[in-house]
Amino acid sequence: MNEHIYLDSAASTPVADEVIDEMLPYMKQQYGNPSSIHKFGRETTRALQLARKRVAEMIGASPREITFTSGGTEADNLALRGTMMHTRRTAPEKTRIITSSIEHDAVLETCKDLEKMGFSVTYLPVTPEGMIRPIDLESTISGDVALVSIMYANNEVGTVQPVQELAKIAHNAGALFHTDAVQVAGKVPISVGSLGIDMMSISSHKINGPKGVGALYIKSGLHIDPVIHGGGQESSLRSGTENVPGIVGFGKACELAVKRMSQYTEYVIALRDYLIERVLKEIPHSRLNGSLKSRTPNNTHFTFFGVNGEDLIIKLDESGIAASTGSACSVKKQKPSHVLKAMGFSYEEITGSLRLSVGMQNTKEEINRTVDALAAIVQELRTLSPFKSKYA
Amino acid sequence: MNEHIYLDSAASTPVADEVIDEMLPYMKQQYGNPSSIHKFGRETTRALQLARKRVAEMIGASPREITFTSGGTEADNLALRGTMMHTRRTAPEKTRIITSSIEHDAVLETCKDLEKMGFSVTYLPVTPEGMIRPIDLESTISGDVALVSIMYANNEVGTVQPVQELAKIAHNAGALFHTDAVQVAGKVPISVGSLGIDMMSISSHKINGPKGVGALYIKSGLHIDPVIHGGGQESSLRSGTENVPGIVGFGKACELAVKRMSQYTEYVIALRDYLIERVLKEIPHSRLNGSLKSRTPNNTHFTFFGVNGEDLIIKLDESGIAASTGSACSVKKQKPSHVLKAMGFSYEEITGSLRLSVGMQNTKEEINRTVDALAAIVQELRTLSPFKSKYA
Repeated sequence: MNEHIYLDSAASTPVADEVIDEMLPYMKQQYGNPSSIHKFGRETTRALQLARKRVAEMIGASPREITFTSGGTEADNLALRGTMMHTRRTAPEKTRIITSSIEHDAVLETCKDLEKMGFSVTYLPVTPEGMIRPIDLESTISGDVALVSIMYANNEVGTVQPVQELAKIAHNAGALFHTDAVQVAGKVPISVGSLGIDMMSISSHKINGPKGVGALYIKSGLHIDPVIHGGGQESSLRSGTENVPGIVGFGKACELAVKRMSQYTEYVIALRDYLIERVLKEIPHSRLNGSLKSRTPNNTHFTFFGVNGEDLIIKLDESGIAASTGSACSVKKQKPSHVLKAMGFSYEEITGSLRLSVGMQNTKEEINRTVDALAAIVQELRTLSPFKSKYA
Repeated sequence: MNEHIYLDSAASTPVADEVIDEMLPYMKQQYGNPSSIHKFGRETTRALQLARKRVAEMIGASPREITFTSGGTEADNLALRGTMMHTRRTAPEKTRIITSSIEHDAVLETCKDLEKMGFSVTYLPVTPEGMIRPIDLESTISGDVALVSIMYANNEVGTVQPVQELAKIAHNAGALFHTDAVQVAGKVPISVGSLGIDMMSISSHKINGPKGVGALYIKSGLHIDPVIHGGGQESSLRSGTENVPGIVGFGKACELAVKRMSQYTEYVIALRDYLIERVLKEIPHSRLNGSLKSRTPNNTHFTFFGVNGEDLIIKLDESGIAASTGSACSVKKQKPSHVLKAMGFSYEEITGSLRLSVGMQNTKEEINRTVDALAAIVQELRTLSPFKSKYA
């Protein structure tokens, strides 16, 4: 049997060798607690400083604007809860959050919990391409809004949002702006300054760094409350002994991402577009979802009519190809995607959906094998489908 | 110059080679997101299952009673906040927490935040040896108490608490019992069942596992609220893509800890007692703090009268010896130890304190070199001290 083909880079990525090489000394030799004042502690403190600088540079921030967390989810939680808990004391009249209906669960579930605590949340609709329209934000925002949180790019369909414009609208109404940039940070050039945003969540394991690390960019001068309390690490914003090897690896992954960004973009976009082209040409009754123009470099998301996406994944897996129906985080819950629902998809359109996300490790030959397998599987499943007469 | 001597194992420990060996494949080859249903996802799901089993076995729990977190601090936060937020809905008359005045900041700062949210907290006093007296808990507990949280062993002075007895008193009054066992889990035999506790926080990097991982034991049948919301990982108790390599490493560290426990205890207690004996015999005006009998295997904590502990650490560091004044987490804050204050120490007794915590990597020869250096440094500092006539 052939080597497995991994087309789920939007869910997670392999850790780069250069990243592992930088992490290992911080497990075996430099294992001090950064809070200790002796040599072992100072070594790890220096390592954190370098990592913070590298992460900051990737997004055009200054190192002190970076707060390390255990991942993108915790960064989202910190941004939303931290802002609202701080606002409750400093501007109690601001009780509303505006977000979108296609956010990651890390934002949506935190919003739900904040609703239970008495805050109100407005969920913006999206276009059929999964785009948030600035006019929709403009028409609902008012002085009671503390925070607008809109993702930079959607994790399922890859649609990139007009973040800069949305941030401006938020600021004009006196609200803060947060974006979950987990799907794009390190993949496209990002400057928090030109975007004009206040907070941004990023993650390590989506860009060939280790799992279990992420960061929240918090604009200098902005104050939010911590979520995890304790020894006062990360300027008291995130307590707990720092995950030194993880943070070191994250820093290295960011440095590599910056160095390779143009190469990455060119390579991955070419693979993505080749995949899209072949699928749409060779597999009948297939459709690309999301925006063609405003899209993350690595995302493809299709609907294959008359087919069940989960059957597709299982069959692809049997053929040695790793794919996803959408967010890794919701696949096991077996509930229809809230993103596709918000985009107005019918049950059939949702059911037949498949995400194939590419990475640097993929080759054109792998894409060819994938499309060949996919075409055969789709055809096979359609002949078994109750919609056989319609699509097979 | 000689090799550095690391006597700060209570702050952090080196990652064992066997642990690193098990982690590496989950960075390079098995990098799937455990939430994915394809081969790569299934591989990491299986790895989490094995790790959960190993962690559970170390403390006599069942795997489903283990919730992985980003470390001991987050586990403490989850236990306290999760319990109180759940109780607020299910038993709103229970608004009080009882804890001790010598807890780790992860517990104390979370308590402070819960006080801001309207809960009340009672802080139990301790004896001069740092022991919580069951009678003190008994005399204050009543039906309004939702949770009693008392650490298994103190991180500064090493005093081991009468957890089993305290848990019984809590239960008799209808309260839950949580213990922060970060300093002992994996070092002494622990069975959550015989202890009769409801929740227990444990950490990986104190027992030769990686930083950035910990767990909360939650007794089967007990419900608490999550702190980090999102994709619903860890049975919805702790969202965020799992730190697979970290969790795998933690699992291996627990397996090793169980395997080596009697060897560890014997070796480390012998080193500890030898260190205590030599210090007390050879360094005048020195005193061991904490309990001699009820003490963690790896902890020594002294007061050297007429000396400043931070000067001691700096001089020891210059001699290649890594020591601590107490909690790594509070050293940089330069505030006097709340633990020693609660034990009734005078300013002078607090100032002159030093923690030396031993580990498997230390040797008797290192202890000899340490005591020799320490004796010389204490004498030197005393001749410079304003208390010269008193101690030098």
